[in-house]
Amino acid sequence: MSGEVLDRFRPLFQPRSVAVVGATENVFKLGFHALAAVTAAGFEGEVYPVNPNAGESIQGLKAYRSIRDLPRGVDLFVYAIPERLVVPAVRESVEMGGRAGVIFAGGFRETGPEGRRLQEELVSIAEAGGMKLIGPNCIGVVNKHARLNATFASPLAWFPEGNVSVVSQSGGMGNSILNELMDEQVGISKFISIGNRANVEFADMVEYLAEDPHTDVICLFIEGLDDGAAFLEKARAASRKKPVLVYSRGYTASSSRTALSHTGSVASSEEVYRGAFRQAGLLQVHSSSEMAATCKAVSMGGMPSGDGVFISTHSAGPVVAICDICERGGLSFPPLAPETARAMESFLPEHAVAANPLDMFAFAWTDTSLYLKAADLALGQEDIHCAVAVFVTGGGAGPTFPSREYAEIGRRHGKPVFLCLITPCALAHEIAEAQSHGVIALSSPEKAAQVLVNLRRLSTLRSGGG
Amino acid sequence: MSGEVLDRFRPLFQPRSVAVVGATENVFKLGFHALAAVTAAGFEGEVYPVNPNAGESIQGLKAYRSIRDLPRGVDLFVYAIPERLVVPAVRESVEMGGRAGVIFAGGFRETGPEGRRLQEELVSIAEAGGMKLIGPNCIGVVNKHARLNATFASPLAWFPEGNVSVVSQSGGMGNSILNELMDEQVGISKFISIGNRANVEFADMVEYLAEDPHTDVICLFIEGLDDGAAFLEKARAASRKKPVLVYSRGYTASSSRTALSHTGSVASSEEVYRGAFRQAGLLQVHSSSEMAATCKAVSMGGMPSGDGVFISTHSAGPVVAICDICERGGLSFPPLAPETARAMESFLPEHAVAANPLDMFAFAWTDTSLYLKAADLALGQEDIHCAVAVFVTGGGAGPTFPSREYAEIGRRHGKPVFLCLITPCALAHEIAEAQSHGVIALSSPEKAAQVLVNLRRLSTLRSGGG
Repeated sequence: MSGEVLDRFRPLFQPRSVAVVGATENVFKLGFHALAAVTAAGFEGEVYPVNPNAGESIQGLKAYRSIRDLPRGVDLFVYAIPERLVVPAVRESVEMGGRAGVIFAGGFRETGPEGRRLQEELVSIAEAGGMKLIGPNCIGVVNKHARLNATFASPLAWFPEGNVSVVSQSGGMGNSILNELMDEQVGISKFISIGNRANVEFADMVEYLAEDPHTDVICLFIEGLDDGAAFLEKARAASRKKPVLVYSRGYTASSSRTALSHTGSVASSEEVYRGAFRQAGLLQVHSSSEMAATCKAVSMGGMPSGDGVFISTHSAGPVVAICDICERGGLSFPPLAPETARAMESFLPEHAVAANPLDMFAFAWTDTSLYLKAADLALGQEDIHCAVAVFVTGGGAGPTFPSREYAEIGRRHGKPVFLCLITPCALAHEIAEAQSHGVIALSSPEKAAQVLVNLRRLSTLRSGGG
Repeated sequence: MSGEVLDRFRPLFQPRSVAVVGATENVFKLGFHALAAVTAAGFEGEVYPVNPNAGESIQGLKAYRSIRDLPRGVDLFVYAIPERLVVPAVRESVEMGGRAGVIFAGGFRETGPEGRRLQEELVSIAEAGGMKLIGPNCIGVVNKHARLNATFASPLAWFPEGNVSVVSQSGGMGNSILNELMDEQVGISKFISIGNRANVEFADMVEYLAEDPHTDVICLFIEGLDDGAAFLEKARAASRKKPVLVYSRGYTASSSRTALSHTGSVASSEEVYRGAFRQAGLLQVHSSSEMAATCKAVSMGGMPSGDGVFISTHSAGPVVAICDICERGGLSFPPLAPETARAMESFLPEHAVAANPLDMFAFAWTDTSLYLKAADLALGQEDIHCAVAVFVTGGGAGPTFPSREYAEIGRRHGKPVFLCLITPCALAHEIAEAQSHGVIALSSPEKAAQVLVNLRRLSTLRSGGG
């Protein structure tokens, strides 16, 4: 069963060969960018540029004048051609044994009855030939583990490899989520912009990713669903295996008007969606940035086993913000047990009170070992399930947070450790360093707090709660 | 009147000389970092390290054994010493003609009755001697225009120079706001971490910044106010002159406990604060990131003269998210007038509908001149007050958004132009490029939308609405 869905989509995600129909040397055409994207990503299979007006080669590769000139059995066809040429091209590809296709062009069901008819024709040709189509009206597919960038955007190949997969109706919104993941230094596995969903739906992709051994977290951006029941069934099954995060938009008059003229779907009432997603065990987030930060914690295995948080800091203000958000999100800051407090008092600086949250003032900024001693003691307490350290970066000119030792303490206690490292993008390498040791590092107090709240929500969802 | 407050704080913000009391070569002490911060920022006045245990020099500067050994009339004293030494040091400084001081140490009123008494003593000495004290329990003051970094954090000098000033009770939270401003590529003028507020209150800083010719936008992070009435009076006056943004926290049990043991204040009921801030004309935001993005638009002069927004895109998904947020925030997307629509139809790609929001599909990604033509026509319409273009970065390998020409169109129509350039931090130079031309560029759809909503709220506030 599980092997079946992986086989079904192997030609799409792990093709042995890719044909780019409409490939060209004209930089103002998508076909230029589509071929460049495939080759720049370092794809190791065969690549065939197809264009009736081609000379001997396109971008240095042997060119083909027509699909019929290609060797039989090319796995994946990328169609970078106008919509009126798509139906005949897909028909020829099916006849030549093609198994999967990506269609960039718009002009299908999002444009009205004629477009809808065209899309139906497309689907019946593909279905008859056993071909899976991504799009039309999409930016395509990326599979980092196969060095496959079947989109028209070369930069999509830059995203580091990892265990998070993203499915988005909208290419632009999918890109926004990828960017935020990159900013959080989270690697991706698959990216799928599914557009008009000719014969590949959210339900299919969720079923596939639930089985995909390279995917540990599934992220979805949804503007509307055609077959909500089928999706919810697959999503419920997937969320029992892996965390599934969903970000959904299109609930106001102007936004649903845009969604309609876009991929031909419209989100219905927000409450209905939210309730159904919750029942299917999906964690709902409210921005691409929130999705990426939460995703990072989940993908790093940062799920605490309970609601008790220990916070330590050298600056109280950020902790005030974190507490506001966490307390409203149902988390707690268990008081320190008398013996924990006594042990802490032996090393705390003057005026610091052994409490949770723990403020060690600027002393802890210059002597960062205080964080380690405090976390080690607090995590020994049964009702404390994770630790959060708040630290303002010294930016190379000042002290550095001892991430390696902090991560070790977390591992020894079997509890996740978080670092709110208050730092600008320009110092993102400090976040990378902390994460390389296993510390879940977030760059702002609000983000850190929201992640903790979301992990709690996810844990409640996965344990069958509301 | 206006000159008076500038004069009063000149020794603090534009000192001719700075003494660092407690300066040392021991990198584990704040006194090391404090002296390094002053010198690394390129301060051009005299710098005097003071330490009773010093040899001939500290960090290459002539050392002084005591405050009494200093030349008379040093403007600013930075106290990097334990709290028990602070009162005598301030007394000596006043006797030597000191006019301003920054005190890092905690251990004052945030610790209870004894600390409160100590702080009162401090205040009476300073007041008698005409000395203004920032702190205790703070990280100090930065004035980019004077190359002054009177904190213990060298990285604070890296923030680019600009027209935004930040006042924060908490040093850490202030730093978080500065980081977000840096990420948004917004320059700062002054940064003040006011801590326990010995004899310099929020009210004083707001009064000062309202008159400061280098400050165009004032940002505040507030955990609690001692004299709310005085603050609100000064804030109301300031908000008539310049936009004032406020981010306030400390409204839950755990967060207010932290705030209390921190700078000795506690925020009272959230509703009371929110109502009072609104009445004083302050724009309230809910995260440091929202503050920075809004601040950027305001500091770049991006206030539209009405609620009508024109949006154009090559990808509908991000626009769906933007519409959701903007429509709920009271903005509108006026339909295109028949003549505008007709003119647009002459150049729009096949299937694109001349409407607002305007989706030009991937055609506009390869031919970016479509954005310019569309914005030029739409901004000619009276009920459209600003334009937003949504563009996914080509990342150097793909197309580039034509920011210079887009900014010119905005200037010709006298209306602000925004760019939602969907881009990771790693490509921040593309944001910088757009902004250098006068385009207000935001890196995600949610951020762009929230900024538009906040500009509308600010405009309502400043015109006396609620």
